Amino acid sequence: MTRIDNRLNDQLRPVRITLDVLKYAEGSAYIEVGDTKVLCAVSIEEKVPPFLRGKGRGWITSEYSLLPRSTQQRTPRDITKGRISGRTQEIQRLIGRALRSVVNLDLLGERTIWIDCDVIQADGGTRTSSITGSFVALAQAFGKMVQDGVLKYLPLTNFVAATSVGIVNNEKLLDLCYEEDSIALIDMNVVMTEKGEYVEVQGTGEGGPFSKQDMDELMSLAEKGVMQLIEIQREVLGDLSEKIGVIPDEMDSGDQ
Amino acid sequence: MTRIDNRLNDQLRPVRITLDVLKYAEGSAYIEVGDTKVLCAVSIEEKVPPFLRGKGRGWITSEYSLLPRSTQQRTPRDITKGRISGRTQEIQRLIGRALRSVVNLDLLGERTIWIDCDVIQADGGTRTSSITGSFVALAQAFGKMVQDGVLKYLPLTNFVAATSVGIVNNEKLLDLCYEEDSIALIDMNVVMTEKGEYVEVQGTGEGGPFSKQDMDELMSLAEKGVMQLIEIQREVLGDLSEKIGVIPDEMDSGDQ
Amino acid sequence: MTRIDNRLNDQLRPVRITLDVLKYAEGSAYIEVGDTKVLCAVSIEEKVPPFLRGKGRGWITSEYSLLPRSTQQRTPRDITKGRISGRTQEIQRLIGRALRSVVNLDLLGERTIWIDCDVIQADGGTRTSSITGSFVALAQAFGKMVQDGVLKYLPLTNFVAATSVGIVNNEKLLDLCYEEDSIALIDMNVVMTEKGEYVEVQGTGEGGPFSKQDMDELMSLAEKGVMQLIEIQREVLGDLSEKIGVIPDEMDSGDQ
Amino acid sequence: MTRIDNRLNDQLRPVRITLDVLKYAEGSAYIEVGDTKVLCAVSIEEKVPPFLRGKGRGWITSEYSLLPRSTQQRTPRDITKGRISGRTQEIQRLIGRALRSVVNLDLLGERTIWIDCDVIQADGGTRTSSITGSFVALAQAFGKMVQDGVLKYLPLTNFVAATSVGIVNNEKLLDLCYEEDSIALIDMNVVMTEKGEYVEVQGTGEGGPFSKQDMDELMSLAEKGVMQLIEIQREVLGDLSEKIGVIPDEMDSGDQ
Amino acid sequence: MTRIDNRLNDQLRPVRITLDVLKYAEGSAYIEVGDTKVLCAVSIEEKVPPFLRGKGRGWITSEYSLLPRSTQQRTPRDITKGRISGRTQEIQRLIGRALRSVVNLDLLGERTIWIDCDVIQADGGTRTSSITGSFVALAQAFGKMVQDGVLKYLPLTNFVAATSVGIVNNEKLLDLCYEEDSIALIDMNVVMTEKGEYVEVQGTGEGGPFSKQDMDELMSLAEKGVMQLIEIQREVLGDLSEKIGVIPDEMDSGDQ
Amino acid sequence: MTRIDNRLNDQLRPVRITLDVLKYAEGSAYIEVGDTKVLCAVSIEEKVPPFLRGKGRGWITSEYSLLPRSTQQRTPRDITKGRISGRTQEIQRLIGRALRSVVNLDLLGERTIWIDCDVIQADGGTRTSSITGSFVALAQAFGKMVQDGVLKYLPLTNFVAATSVGIVNNEKLLDLCYEEDSIALIDMNVVMTEKGEYVEVQGTGEGGPFSKQDMDELMSLAEKGVMQLIEIQREVLGDLSEKIGVIPDEMDSGDQ
Repeated sequence: MTRIDNRLNDQLRPVRITLDVLKYAEGSAYIEVGDTKVLCAVSIEEKVPPFLRGKGRGWITSEYSLLPRSTQQRTPRDITKGRISGRTQEIQRLIGRALRSVVNLDLLGERTIWIDCDVIQADGGTRTSSITGSFVALAQAFGKMVQDGVLKYLPLTNFVAATSVGIVNNEKLLDLCYEEDSIALIDMNVVMTEKGEYVEVQGTGEGGPFSKQDMDELMSLAEKGVMQLIEIQREVLGDLSEKIGVIPDEMDSGDQ
Repeated sequence: MTRIDNRLNDQLRPVRITLDVLKYAEGSAYIEVGDTKVLCAVSIEEKVPPFLRGKGRGWITSEYSLLPRSTQQRTPRDITKGRISGRTQEIQRLIGRALRSVVNLDLLGERTIWIDCDVIQADGGTRTSSITGSFVALAQAFGKMVQDGVLKYLPLTNFVAATSVGIVNNEKLLDLCYEEDSIALIDMNVVMTEKGEYVEVQGTGEGGPFSKQDMDELMSLAEKGVMQLIEIQREVLGDLSEKIGVIPDEMDSGDQ
Repeated sequence: MTRIDNRLNDQLRPVRITLDVLKYAEGSAYIEVGDTKVLCAVSIEEKVPPFLRGKGRGWITSEYSLLPRSTQQRTPRDITKGRISGRTQEIQRLIGRALRSVVNLDLLGERTIWIDCDVIQADGGTRTSSITGSFVALAQAFGKMVQDGVLKYLPLTNFVAATSVGIVNNEKLLDLCYEEDSIALIDMNVVMTEKGEYVEVQGTGEGGPFSKQDMDELMSLAEKGVMQLIEIQREVLGDLSEKIGVIPDEMDSGDQ
Repeated sequence: MTRIDNRLNDQLRPVRITLDVLKYAEGSAYIEVGDTKVLCAVSIEEKVPPFLRGKGRGWITSEYSLLPRSTQQRTPRDITKGRISGRTQEIQRLIGRALRSVVNLDLLGERTIWIDCDVIQADGGTRTSSITGSFVALAQAFGKMVQDGVLKYLPLTNFVAATSVGIVNNEKLLDLCYEEDSIALIDMNVVMTEKGEYVEVQGTGEGGPFSKQDMDELMSLAEKGVMQLIEIQREVLGDLSEKIGVIPDEMDSGDQ
Repeated sequence: MTRIDNRLNDQLRPVRITLDVLKYAEGSAYIEVGDTKVLCAVSIEEKVPPFLRGKGRGWITSEYSLLPRSTQQRTPRDITKGRISGRTQEIQRLIGRALRSVVNLDLLGERTIWIDCDVIQADGGTRTSSITGSFVALAQAFGKMVQDGVLKYLPLTNFVAATSVGIVNNEKLLDLCYEEDSIALIDMNVVMTEKGEYVEVQGTGEGGPFSKQDMDELMSLAEKGVMQLIEIQREVLGDLSEKIGVIPDEMDSGDQ
Repeated sequence: MTRIDNRLNDQLRPVRITLDVLKYAEGSAYIEVGDTKVLCAVSIEEKVPPFLRGKGRGWITSEYSLLPRSTQQRTPRDITKGRISGRTQEIQRLIGRALRSVVNLDLLGERTIWIDCDVIQADGGTRTSSITGSFVALAQAFGKMVQDGVLKYLPLTNFVAATSVGIVNNEKLLDLCYEEDSIALIDMNVVMTEKGEYVEVQGTGEGGPFSKQDMDELMSLAEKGVMQLIEIQREVLGDLSEKIGVIPDEMDSGDQ
């Protein structure tokens, strides 16, 4: 059995990340994973939310939104419905956690980083693509801050990227497109670092329970995909890649 | 090293589930897991949301809320803030998915089941306790429907229960209380059936990435806890337990 | 003619007040009046709203809410409807006024007391039960503050309790249950102190106008009920009861 | 001791009611009670809210609002604050109840009457003036419906009017202006019919409890005021007054 | 062809402006233009919005609202719909801009002027009438401030007034009433000073595009109307008119 | 004096329109005017709003939004502020009117066209660019409908495009960028058809009144710009351009 777009079960869709696409943002990236396209923008605010004031540490928060016609049927804007959907809230919380897990918030200092992920086109995997693209935009923003002397060290401890895996018609598939995702019995989103460690694993079996073995196989598949995505991030970032994870010992005492 | 409340690392807090605590609800249960206390109420509505109309299938949806003084500091009501928090939305979506995974929605017919989980006191694990308690309230409601001839068969395919596990001070712990949860580096919520299969696994490492081995060990710990919780559910439900998962072959064709 | 539950016309439903039911709240009480059950929680905040700042006086405010399945038909949450109903607002304003009328706000100092009344089950008289129960929770909270040396004197000038009365099928009845309330032509809520004085009288004749004599008879009936409720409050509070209304002369100059 | 505006304790402020002040409304009145000025508009909608459909009965609902600069300090609009204040909700519920109490809703048929009370200037007693003025506007609207053959009988069973009374500096006063109201220890709003019966009595002693005797004296004072207000309503309505309360026996079977 | 109300094409409806109609407002005017009636109230707040703090300049903002029964069909209140309509927002922004254009905000000092325009009756031209009436109320408020020594000079640089023009049945008409406005192909609102200069020109051809010549003719017609309106403003303001536009040279350096 | 970007006073910024940039939308265009970049998407819904039902005519409505980091400082999302700003509402109403003015809504039939204009980058002129770009996306969508036999004729009666003009440092400038716009004394937005007729003219002189001559000169400047923009639209649309404005006589009876 072949996949809708003739990919192999363990094959990612074509991925392209374009850096620095916005004039005003401190960092930005446009990520295309197949027909899924997300614009990621980084903004830096020189203050932190109340619960962190005076602690010398920074914060990273994320907002995610679908453009109305990113979807097959037009999706009404949040403001029209008067509220942010549960799905959107889950996704923006996930993106925030994923990026915070690889940032040394002490090195960042009392600053808030806003990550805006706006989905231009949605064909499955928008949340994982948002994480993968935002990491690159964030690295760019941090890179400039180091260059400008605002930060002494790049406060990134790891690369981080994400993909989805799932079981469709009894096949375990990597990087589901929308059509696959909508009929998957089990669906997992996996966020990992380049060291092969997990930052977040979310497996859901609304179509029915799944076994430990299914889960293990899906996680291996996801790891394969994430490692390829990090390779692409590395290429896009060029020299800056060398400085990720390189924090002098005396500084790396943050308990973030 | 011992735990705050002198439990063993793989020990649940004392669990008590009281059935049928509300006069008007079609089903209800009050679950106490240590100092965490949740009131679960089941309401049956004889119609389904628009996207399901005319398909002959039912729906299960959940709402979750903290009473203002269930928490150490008073939590303002959602209506005061004018919106449901992202945390609340995540939790109510999780509860809904967990329960839907063990219900044959075709057997249920065109009905909506509302599960209200109101937290009377919050000491960690409110979302997992909500799932465990709601399952019992739901079984009671379905039991009455079968008794009243509204349903022919109990539309439950499995028991389902949930617990949390995490890593605190390098120890892997079962059923975290609030104090443990707030300092855990890794935190996992696991929803399982009595067959030892997974319905939902959510592992988060905001305190830093975690390895595959950590994850495997935490999942084993969780399984141990869930099996005990299902044992308690079984006792509370008494004879009704025998009918869970018993659906005649000719009926079990739902692709829910 | 006998009442639905075989009570005499001037008989209260069985009343039970349980003190100190919540772990985190500064004061709490669970009041059961027949099948009406309300959880009352007291929170203390060390500041006052803007209009009182710098005046050395405290404030008491109340919030009231029905749990969704406290009622025969499920009541949607306020946040779902996006607004607090007029009925809810009226009730929380009433509870606040009733309690403020027996508190010396000067003795309280610049603190805000939050009274949360969450109705677990609603069978008529939820607003009056909320007042009766909240008074006990408030006394407990104040008692602790005196014990801890935060307050020098218990700032309570009176006991306060409340009940409802009404005319049903030409009979004047004390403490209406829901079924009686829904067919009452005249409906009165009466809040009184233990000295037999009125704090609030609200009589409504939507079913038609009523005479002065009707009103007088209903108020006598209400007084009888309130006095019994205060007796129960006194028992629940034990020794603390002796200190209510005992404020040294030199302090009692507040014009609250 | 004399009152701020040199009135006797039992004297109303000058009252003027102007009928038919709006071009489009089905009925309208402008009531001035001293410096308090309210515009009352009646709209008729040929349907009822869902809970009354198919029952052949009508409904009356009211909305009340302060123009921003009706008050000494500018009051922000409800829409700016995003919600209707508790005070406003209480008032509009009160106005609705007061008017429904004198309308035979069966004779009205399946129609909704909207009563809009917009306060042009607020100097105390805006809620009672709204009731007194709206009654006249409502009678006008009903009069036209009878004239046009839409209704066979005027569905009004009684006149209704309202005033406030209170205790200020130990004096019992009729028709409090704002300055008096703001220092009153006890404050009562009384809604009565021309037969001297009560429709609504709301007495509040936030400044401290009050005795049965105080209440009785205040209610006598209020009755005196209401009777004068009804006399003015009668003059304004002219011939139409004769038809109020005149419903043929065979029709007067409504159990409103 | 004659107009609905027998006016000439270039004739305004009867205009009446009554000054000082509200007891509490710092300035107020009631403007009647035919059956369109608007109450304009001016409030002065001794502070400015954040973006102007510390700059020594003032601000003028406007709110506009239709009373529910100002219109043929009852218009639900903004708070009922939960949002301010786009139309209302456009109008209040327009009124604010129009008035700011003739005020020397430096002379005003760090104060915010609130202009409330509440439409009592709407028969076309409510936005332009609001501007014309508010200018008079504003002049009165400023006049008092000068009298009270709060301001040294009247900070008004010009008179400003507004009217609408449009093309109806191929006729170019001045001051459209509602019935004309609703069938106009082209509709223009013109705000001008007494020097014949434009402050705002808004021409809309939803019924189809229009030519430069049409526009020029409509603007001439509007100018004629505005000059008459300013004449009426001048009469209403009496002596105060002499001080408008008279700012000593040394003070007139504001770049408002 | 030269302009910030060395343009001549009557010179547009570089304009590029890319057609068909979205996979799911019925029509789409990406317009770049200098650094201003807007994504325009057209969606077709097979029904009309209530006020048009059963009349056989269509409707066109528009929504406009700034992506958070389209601006120099991050702009919070509408949903965060809980309301659509007045500026946004004005703009989306303008876009809707502009496009409706060139569509024969009778030929369209009972359909609603949604035009989503999402600003990717904002450097002045976002509203006029939205109109210019949306027209192209709309033509594409209509073209497909004709091709698919859904429509018999292209329901476009004209080309429409828009630009801004203004007075900066006493110079009259075409197509203001943000830096120019923010210091302009007079600011005009002009929407025109290819026949040189006006659809909408909005001139605002918040910086002070302006003369008829200023207005005339600005309008000439705008016309020059719009004609160039329509030339670009024509190139992008290719053959489809030929069918715009070509509606057989017998069909062109709509009084839109």
